[in-house]
Amino acid sequence: MDMKKEIAYKASDMDRIIYRYLPKEEGYQATVFQAMNYSLLAGGKRIRPILMMETYKLFGESSKAIEPFVAAIEMIHTYSLVHDDLPAMDNDTLRRGRPTTHAKFGEAMGILAGDALLNYAFETALTALSVEPDNPAVVQALQLLAKKAGVYGMIGGQVADVEAEKQYGISKNRLDFIYRLKTGALIEAAMMIGALLGGAGGAEVEQIGQVAEKIGLAFQIQDDVLDVVGDEEVLGKTIGSDARNQKATYVVFEGLEKARQDVASLTGEAVGILRDLPYENVFLTELLRWMVRREK
Amino acid sequence: MDMKKEIAYKASDMDRIIYRYLPKEEGYQATVFQAMNYSLLAGGKRIRPILMMETYKLFGESSKAIEPFVAAIEMIHTYSLVHDDLPAMDNDTLRRGRPTTHAKFGEAMGILAGDALLNYAFETALTALSVEPDNPAVVQALQLLAKKAGVYGMIGGQVADVEAEKQYGISKNRLDFIYRLKTGALIEAAMMIGALLGGAGGAEVEQIGQVAEKIGLAFQIQDDVLDVVGDEEVLGKTIGSDARNQKATYVVFEGLEKARQDVASLTGEAVGILRDLPYENVFLTELLRWMVRREK
Repeated sequence: MDMKKEIAYKASDMDRIIYRYLPKEEGYQATVFQAMNYSLLAGGKRIRPILMMETYKLFGESSKAIEPFVAAIEMIHTYSLVHDDLPAMDNDTLRRGRPTTHAKFGEAMGILAGDALLNYAFETALTALSVEPDNPAVVQALQLLAKKAGVYGMIGGQVADVEAEKQYGISKNRLDFIYRLKTGALIEAAMMIGALLGGAGGAEVEQIGQVAEKIGLAFQIQDDVLDVVGDEEVLGKTIGSDARNQKATYVVFEGLEKARQDVASLTGEAVGILRDLPYENVFLTELLRWMVRREK
Repeated sequence: MDMKKEIAYKASDMDRIIYRYLPKEEGYQATVFQAMNYSLLAGGKRIRPILMMETYKLFGESSKAIEPFVAAIEMIHTYSLVHDDLPAMDNDTLRRGRPTTHAKFGEAMGILAGDALLNYAFETALTALSVEPDNPAVVQALQLLAKKAGVYGMIGGQVADVEAEKQYGISKNRLDFIYRLKTGALIEAAMMIGALLGGAGGAEVEQIGQVAEKIGLAFQIQDDVLDVVGDEEVLGKTIGSDARNQKATYVVFEGLEKARQDVASLTGEAVGILRDLPYENVFLTELLRWMVRREK
């Protein structure tokens, strides 16, 4: 399976869904629509929508209301990037080779476009209740989306991360908390919503949550590994530099070798749980493996 | 009726509801909980929650799921203030005599606390679906909340307002758009959700929407009037100074006298529509009148 090609193909499917939910760029508030669409169409790999859709297929595509959730999860991921890039946060002016949203539209519009995307994500997801008003899985999916995106999910992880930067050293427990929530929570939301709307039972949804948690963690640790390896290869920077910069990472705590082993074992566990289910989606299994062996 | 006392009494009822939905200040993300609660408990008058609850009472308190919406609308109003106060927006460091959220917790936490409040508003409102899963009015209320808070509501008005500041002169049409959405949209959401969950029929919900739109507009124009009158009395600033500062307001377009007349006639129309309904809530009528004769 040529994963790069397959993923690009699936991503264009996801793009077609997302396009349908984009606001029209008209009216006195046209600038915010331009800024929303600019950031949504910045060339993301659509990993979360694909994970949602493939998990939905795994369980049999029971609900008709998957598409608003596919669009909504990408809007939430996108707003988090727009706000992360702001001067008071990471202060990034480039993303994927293009100016970031606030660099292009100004800082006020960066804040408002992020707010708009978050709000529009819920506006979009809530249309699922008009498609299927009597499906309890839709209600559960909406509540899960809100929880995993919020203070007990992604935002909680971001806050703990911002706080950590102000401290000299952070505990391994806090690092685990950040890793589990900052990236992991939206990956859990994507796969668990896919499972719920696919028709999974409660225990199966929990199992998928386990798969997502392990893959999310492996994905994040792999990011640290690539940082270190990339720095060494490209910049000749030594492994210890993250530690000297007081940036606590999994690699700093556990060392490069243990970090690599943990990526492999977490991935193995995730794939194992997926394989124990009485359904099969070969692409999804391959996607999980691909996510943690990707390059930067 | 001693309105100031009555409103303070009702506001403390609303506070009791809001308190129940506040997050506990614990965990690695404790700072964001502190920032959320700090801004939520900054002494607002709780006008939107009171409008929602009183409209709900007017129509007979049909649904059991009003309280999550009462808390949610105040969270949305509060997040909009937190983000409005940011350095890239209005750059205010004081609100009601206390440091604004970003002034107290730092700019990054100001952004994240605003995001967190917006997300938590939906997380809170969505619990209504667990209280009453089979009530179509709850679904309509959720969709209305998202729409009125978003790009076709409050955020849309804010964007048009931010854009207007960059231009030399703005059209009366754009000013009307800003006035209708920036303050009006959340007042509409409050009263229409109160009507929906109170048990109002479709036509009645629309009538309440009209009441809210007129009062929201009158409220905003009165704000301009008070700015001018306040400036004249306190600072000896002349009426024309807003125009020289290129700040387009209703008063600049229409003149002080016409603005005052319009406040009175819009309020009269709003109260008239309310009185034509076959139900009565004397306090609500008085509240609408009070909103537009308030002092700064």
